[in-house]
Amino acid sequence: MAVPIFIDCDPGHDDMMAIMLAVAHPQLELIGISTVAGNQTGERTFDNAGRILTLLNRTDIPLARGADAPLCRKLVTAPAFHGTSGLDGAELPSSAVPERAESAIALMARAILENPGPVVLVPTGPLTNVAMALRAHPEIADSIERIVLMGGGVFDSNTTPAAEFNIFVDPEAAAAVFAGGVPITMVGLDATNKAVLDYDQIAQIEAMGGPVSRVVAPLMRFFSGANEELFGINGAPIHDALAVAAVVAPDLLVTQDVYVAVETQGDLTRGQTVADLYGITGLAPNASVALGVDRGRFIAMMIDAIRRLDETVVA
Amino acid sequence: MAVPIFIDCDPGHDDMMAIMLAVAHPQLELIGISTVAGNQTGERTFDNAGRILTLLNRTDIPLARGADAPLCRKLVTAPAFHGTSGLDGAELPSSAVPERAESAIALMARAILENPGPVVLVPTGPLTNVAMALRAHPEIADSIERIVLMGGGVFDSNTTPAAEFNIFVDPEAAAAVFAGGVPITMVGLDATNKAVLDYDQIAQIEAMGGPVSRVVAPLMRFFSGANEELFGINGAPIHDALAVAAVVAPDLLVTQDVYVAVETQGDLTRGQTVADLYGITGLAPNASVALGVDRGRFIAMMIDAIRRLDETVVA
Amino acid sequence: MAVPIFIDCDPGHDDMMAIMLAVAHPQLELIGISTVAGNQTGERTFDNAGRILTLLNRTDIPLARGADAPLCRKLVTAPAFHGTSGLDGAELPSSAVPERAESAIALMARAILENPGPVVLVPTGPLTNVAMALRAHPEIADSIERIVLMGGGVFDSNTTPAAEFNIFVDPEAAAAVFAGGVPITMVGLDATNKAVLDYDQIAQIEAMGGPVSRVVAPLMRFFSGANEELFGINGAPIHDALAVAAVVAPDLLVTQDVYVAVETQGDLTRGQTVADLYGITGLAPNASVALGVDRGRFIAMMIDAIRRLDETVVA
Amino acid sequence: MAVPIFIDCDPGHDDMMAIMLAVAHPQLELIGISTVAGNQTGERTFDNAGRILTLLNRTDIPLARGADAPLCRKLVTAPAFHGTSGLDGAELPSSAVPERAESAIALMARAILENPGPVVLVPTGPLTNVAMALRAHPEIADSIERIVLMGGGVFDSNTTPAAEFNIFVDPEAAAAVFAGGVPITMVGLDATNKAVLDYDQIAQIEAMGGPVSRVVAPLMRFFSGANEELFGINGAPIHDALAVAAVVAPDLLVTQDVYVAVETQGDLTRGQTVADLYGITGLAPNASVALGVDRGRFIAMMIDAIRRLDETVVA
Repeated sequence: MAVPIFIDCDPGHDDMMAIMLAVAHPQLELIGISTVAGNQTGERTFDNAGRILTLLNRTDIPLARGADAPLCRKLVTAPAFHGTSGLDGAELPSSAVPERAESAIALMARAILENPGPVVLVPTGPLTNVAMALRAHPEIADSIERIVLMGGGVFDSNTTPAAEFNIFVDPEAAAAVFAGGVPITMVGLDATNKAVLDYDQIAQIEAMGGPVSRVVAPLMRFFSGANEELFGINGAPIHDALAVAAVVAPDLLVTQDVYVAVETQGDLTRGQTVADLYGITGLAPNASVALGVDRGRFIAMMIDAIRRLDETVVA
Repeated sequence: MAVPIFIDCDPGHDDMMAIMLAVAHPQLELIGISTVAGNQTGERTFDNAGRILTLLNRTDIPLARGADAPLCRKLVTAPAFHGTSGLDGAELPSSAVPERAESAIALMARAILENPGPVVLVPTGPLTNVAMALRAHPEIADSIERIVLMGGGVFDSNTTPAAEFNIFVDPEAAAAVFAGGVPITMVGLDATNKAVLDYDQIAQIEAMGGPVSRVVAPLMRFFSGANEELFGINGAPIHDALAVAAVVAPDLLVTQDVYVAVETQGDLTRGQTVADLYGITGLAPNASVALGVDRGRFIAMMIDAIRRLDETVVA
Repeated sequence: MAVPIFIDCDPGHDDMMAIMLAVAHPQLELIGISTVAGNQTGERTFDNAGRILTLLNRTDIPLARGADAPLCRKLVTAPAFHGTSGLDGAELPSSAVPERAESAIALMARAILENPGPVVLVPTGPLTNVAMALRAHPEIADSIERIVLMGGGVFDSNTTPAAEFNIFVDPEAAAAVFAGGVPITMVGLDATNKAVLDYDQIAQIEAMGGPVSRVVAPLMRFFSGANEELFGINGAPIHDALAVAAVVAPDLLVTQDVYVAVETQGDLTRGQTVADLYGITGLAPNASVALGVDRGRFIAMMIDAIRRLDETVVA
Repeated sequence: MAVPIFIDCDPGHDDMMAIMLAVAHPQLELIGISTVAGNQTGERTFDNAGRILTLLNRTDIPLARGADAPLCRKLVTAPAFHGTSGLDGAELPSSAVPERAESAIALMARAILENPGPVVLVPTGPLTNVAMALRAHPEIADSIERIVLMGGGVFDSNTTPAAEFNIFVDPEAAAAVFAGGVPITMVGLDATNKAVLDYDQIAQIEAMGGPVSRVVAPLMRFFSGANEELFGINGAPIHDALAVAAVVAPDLLVTQDVYVAVETQGDLTRGQTVADLYGITGLAPNASVALGVDRGRFIAMMIDAIRRLDETVVA
């Protein structure tokens, strides 16, 4: 029995890996994708999602374009990490996925409500769409088994000294989601900065020579660039894919159940995911926070997915 | 040629007056209504809107239920002003309007896009739905001629020393709407606190004795209570109705074009509409702000509407 | 019996007028002056105070140099209004006042404590020194009859759409002073923007031709410049002098007793003096806020002071 | 050659240990103490400092009472950790130190300026006095070799999920000190939570049976209470003493040089010391931040100091 998941993303190199894993893994059923402005503009992240599905021969998966900007702030993008296209490093096929009239949050709500059982929602970008969907369609909360999101960090950050990119871009949306009552697994930088495809593994992917692997390898090389330069990471930390992996294999993560709130104010800490590790607030845990990862197993799962996609796409 | 308007509201006594004016005025065509949590909970404001349309024999007007809470804050309601029902003071008929599957923002977007010409959007509650509709359906911006909203204040406030209720309840939504690029007429407390139905006029409405007026009069008596006690207003300031009136008769208002931004931070000023009266910021005006009102003409227009409804509803 | 006053200032054109009025008025005894960074740097405001006392032949008045920066923010100055010297427009004599070892807050505390009766403290710049003196020497609170400060505004602002300069520069200090328990008269922009020396009156001062008036007239012409350009004021609003005048003639002001707090957060409203005009907070008034001024009487008092100084200084 | 140090503190159990170490260590010369409200009220922390000096027969050390409240906030104290006296657990002798006219910041400035060489300033409480001294007497900055403060945390907190007590109590003062230009060693919770006197060591001190040790032991037992209950620490983390120890033995600490700023806004993160571990801001390091401690050596140093005091005080 495959777990139905809906991905809300802003591709983005690691978002692409997340989609690939969701498509390839036999225990996952990807029931829909929505895109949001984040790593790049709303136009580009939507187009990139379409290109990815086209590359994977999966244009049948429903795809909708969501918010072009955070709830109440100006958009900040991450061209240093993802380039001007959002997927710099390789050329993907043009998207064969048509734009649909249905908004991202309408698709998200419908896909979740029409699914026979509860769905796992996997946001890998700013939480703008997710926050709006929960507000506009509160009835979906009961049909979401869990939100497994890539974002935040307890000890680690990447955009300011206190904040991770996805949460920093739309802290108000993140605050709403963390306060929204749906159980959350927060797959943040404490785990994902260690979820690294190292240079040998990128070379191994390159050597596969399949239709997907030969696109993935140069993308990962590009993505490792700024990560090494700014954070000293030797390789490509495929953050978003770890969130998808954690849906099928929660024990990949070392987690702690804590209360997490999102700072929306202040110049220094805006977008910080504030975790109450000591229980100082007395508030009940609302999130299972990833503090560590079994990197070996995760990377093996990812490489296996790429191999499977190489075969599928050829066939 | 009637002006097509869409009302997003949280009835609420003065919201009811706004809907009545929109239904009754020959130069207005009310193409839809959405409700939002504000003066009371989302459940009650939706029910109240249904009761109002039922009272007015206009259950044909599309009505959808929107957000039950602000974008990222806990809901604050105003029972001191509107009672526990949101429409205390008189009994309205049970709502004959069925709940619809379509979300408020989907209805708002569809009604606006399907209308042959541009629509005036009249929000009279917290701006949660409006902010989400602009994010989820950015294409509607071009089809909105203007947002004429009741909310805010330049010199006046009613909920904190710095903020008016609608903006205070969801400052992030308001910030998004004021920064959203659609021309705004801000019908705030500087004008609406003077848009008062005085006790003689309430008696005059009572004396009409029609099916609508005999409901309106006790509602207005109730509504004048807290307004007199807390703000020293002698009568019922029918804030929201002034926004509708300003659509057909903009010259009811004394306005100034200024740049307005909404404070989302701080304990003291959160929800304040900060108006740049001197042009200190150098930013171009994004709002026409009402600083005064022709009270006599406005009240005459309102009483005329009630009279017309009395006749229509009977017939 | 003259009222003993201590002035904490950042001269500044209107600070100079405040000092002149305090020196000249028979019912005031100026027992000391401290300076603070504000209109210009700490170095310049101290030097300017020394030049003013030298011009007035009153180097006997104790003068100490205070904070060069706000409590916890970077200094913002006002060269557009006061020029690069802080007193652009005329040449004053070099200061004959020596720098003293005693800090501004030590002088302020000592002058207040050594005075036989209670003292009126008149701050006309950012409240950095005053806040620190109240913290470092809490025993002075009982010996301060009242703080009559120039700063803030209820409806009016001059530095941001929400804030007046003195409060904006050091909002934390202002917050501390307003919460400090000493009765406050807030002589803010609502009154001082109307406390204008118009062009005829400046010409009248010029025509006096005395040793003080011939310095004052060109200073006032300079000061009127940016005030006319930015705020449309026809002349020189001598804000700070009105605070001194209000000590001897409180009935120059139309005041309202209200609770005032200072916003220290937010990008839009930082430094705003938030006045609870309706009593919404339920907190007891801590300030008598000036909302209007008897301009005629105030200007007459000021011109009289200049005339007296012309005579005194000659003699 | 002993290093001259000035301690600003809020005793407090661990402040007492800090003073004891400063008095006892042959390579330190304690040139003065000022007190501040923090662990308890200003009245109690001053009295406690007097009692400690009296116990140690060192009433010759200049002691002044400083701020009773943070720069611009209401005081928060820590009775759960230090009891209602601020030194619960044992009875110390009444203070034989007279209150002096000189304010804390005047004493601090004078002691620093009169010392022949540069002084190390060791704040172990909220930074209210230190911030004011740097503002009121900016000339002392050149005579302070370094500020070695107990406060803050990079990964650890104790008062809110984001903030340590000393910084939380007066974040504005802390912000001013970190931005003040004097080199800082931040001895925060990441190190001090490991600087624990365990139960065996407390028993060892008890067994000494000297005039100081027999007071210290029950104090440490009391202090371990809430620390064990709330943070799971087995013993008494003598935070403040580690700051003093680090003056003579900097290599007790594992440090990293980083840029640190203090959040003064936000409900969730106010008082957080935000450390730029990756150099994201591009700002030059202003602090050497303690991330680890050689606990064994530190505790040995402390026990040695207690032994020496036992002997000195007897003699």
